[in-house]
Amino acid sequence: MINKIILDTDPGIDDAMAILFAEAHSAIELKAITTVYGNATIENGTNNALFLKKKYNFKADVAQGASQPLVRDPVGATVVVHGETGFGDVHAPQITDLKADPRPAFQYIIDAVKAEPGEITLVAVGPLTNLALALESAPEIAGLVKEVVVMGGAFGMNGHRGNVTPFAEANIHDDPHAADIVFTASWPVVVIGLDVTEESFFSKDYLDLLRDDAGEVGQFIWDISRYYLDFYSKKVGLEGCHVHDPSAIAYVIDPTLFTLREGPIRVVTDGPAEGLTIQKFDGRKHLHDDWESKRAQQVGVAVRDEALLKLYRDTIINYSKQ
Amino acid sequence: MINKIILDTDPGIDDAMAILFAEAHSAIELKAITTVYGNATIENGTNNALFLKKKYNFKADVAQGASQPLVRDPVGATVVVHGETGFGDVHAPQITDLKADPRPAFQYIIDAVKAEPGEITLVAVGPLTNLALALESAPEIAGLVKEVVVMGGAFGMNGHRGNVTPFAEANIHDDPHAADIVFTASWPVVVIGLDVTEESFFSKDYLDLLRDDAGEVGQFIWDISRYYLDFYSKKVGLEGCHVHDPSAIAYVIDPTLFTLREGPIRVVTDGPAEGLTIQKFDGRKHLHDDWESKRAQQVGVAVRDEALLKLYRDTIINYSKQ
Repeated sequence: MINKIILDTDPGIDDAMAILFAEAHSAIELKAITTVYGNATIENGTNNALFLKKKYNFKADVAQGASQPLVRDPVGATVVVHGETGFGDVHAPQITDLKADPRPAFQYIIDAVKAEPGEITLVAVGPLTNLALALESAPEIAGLVKEVVVMGGAFGMNGHRGNVTPFAEANIHDDPHAADIVFTASWPVVVIGLDVTEESFFSKDYLDLLRDDAGEVGQFIWDISRYYLDFYSKKVGLEGCHVHDPSAIAYVIDPTLFTLREGPIRVVTDGPAEGLTIQKFDGRKHLHDDWESKRAQQVGVAVRDEALLKLYRDTIINYSKQ
Repeated sequence: MINKIILDTDPGIDDAMAILFAEAHSAIELKAITTVYGNATIENGTNNALFLKKKYNFKADVAQGASQPLVRDPVGATVVVHGETGFGDVHAPQITDLKADPRPAFQYIIDAVKAEPGEITLVAVGPLTNLALALESAPEIAGLVKEVVVMGGAFGMNGHRGNVTPFAEANIHDDPHAADIVFTASWPVVVIGLDVTEESFFSKDYLDLLRDDAGEVGQFIWDISRYYLDFYSKKVGLEGCHVHDPSAIAYVIDPTLFTLREGPIRVVTDGPAEGLTIQKFDGRKHLHDDWESKRAQQVGVAVRDEALLKLYRDTIINYSKQ
């Protein structure tokens, strides 16, 4: 079965790793890349997406999305993690011969979903602003999307509670209001958060081997990841990086890599815990309960990390030989 | 060592159990009972405190406190748990021959703390409004209090996350803004939350035996707890009740009953998770961190429940023989 996806992304180093993973695997048809602020500014992120489309000859459309969150003050590009323009030390040239779709990302998403009802999986690996805008503009798409797969959040499994703050993951922290809209809509959502993405690890050796074995694309992934690994080494104390955005793609390719937990999800939108994601997964009754009326969604709570790492490596190596 | 305490309380069935425990044990000098809305209205709660003072001839002063939370809309008295006037089926007569102190509770607290610097432990087993008002009016008391012991909150240990909502305990949910003020002040706080209070259990049999063995006071505790046990039986599915407010008194008498975890605490004040208490207990560094500048407080994460139940029983039986 081929999964038609729209990949909503803020490229971003691990976003590029995810985009190439989606493009490379035969189980996925990458229909479009929709961009959003986050790891980089919307202008840099969109240029990075066009750069990849040109470099690797993607058929996928690129549509530019939101430049800022729905309600909260913008946090700003994550330069300390992803570098000045989003791809670490690799600065993509300004792409002028390819253009983004004229529609804003949320409208592109609405039109694409309506054109193929029940066929499109939305994979969101940045702030959820575009998806929330699409829902607000056309609530009926909630019934027309096949599935929504989100990389974001942290639910406390294995001690994983937050990265940008002690209790918030960056994508959700960037726009907690949008995340609460997306998680509480009536469409089916699978959330691949830090609980699982921080359990998989691209080690320095893994990336060196991928460079050696996966030709030009292996070299490109190695090149953009130098800045990222430097951040991990100096700030996180790890020689390698967690597998954030590619994990969402891995879920689409092979859902059996993950163990899921079911229950409604809400997001804290204000105060010191803004961006905290909370799933109610017991059936207890309470006097007041702002979860119980919401659709039960799925949260990844465990991952077969060795199988995921093998899937990524095999996919990229195979792609390098095409 | 005798611990001089001011017991801030919303009586309340388990509040009465805690008040009698504090009065009964020789390691505690119950200097005052300050009242707050919560389990009952402020008028009923204060009358209940005066009723106990008269009935058991307490030396302790009674001072009436806040009738509503600092910021949020009042939740209202917890009639479903504590009955129409706070003591279940026992309706205290209107006490007219004893009067509350003329000062509001927060002012009483300020004056008492300043009169005996370093001597007073504040034990708060209701919404934290009075303590927050005292801090706001006289911030210097933070340096003059011996310790603050709070029954409230839930930190997810052993699956204990909330009672009145899926992720909030009632005392904190009643006034989350006050709780955040109290937990982030520079005084030392020990929080005895659902993580431990729901691990101790007054069974139906335990209370029957206490009635048989502890004379009039045992009978009184049995009488007021009938309504409470009916709630537990019908709504929680347990034949007995958790040991909420008496656990805070038990901590003052014997801190070794509890295992504590250290770290700053914040409270979610708005939205579906309002009243959620969050302690940061790892040393991780984050780009944004609204915990790290706050004083590390203590949270109870385990309790020796059998020893606690024996301490309560022995104390009440001994008191009944005086």
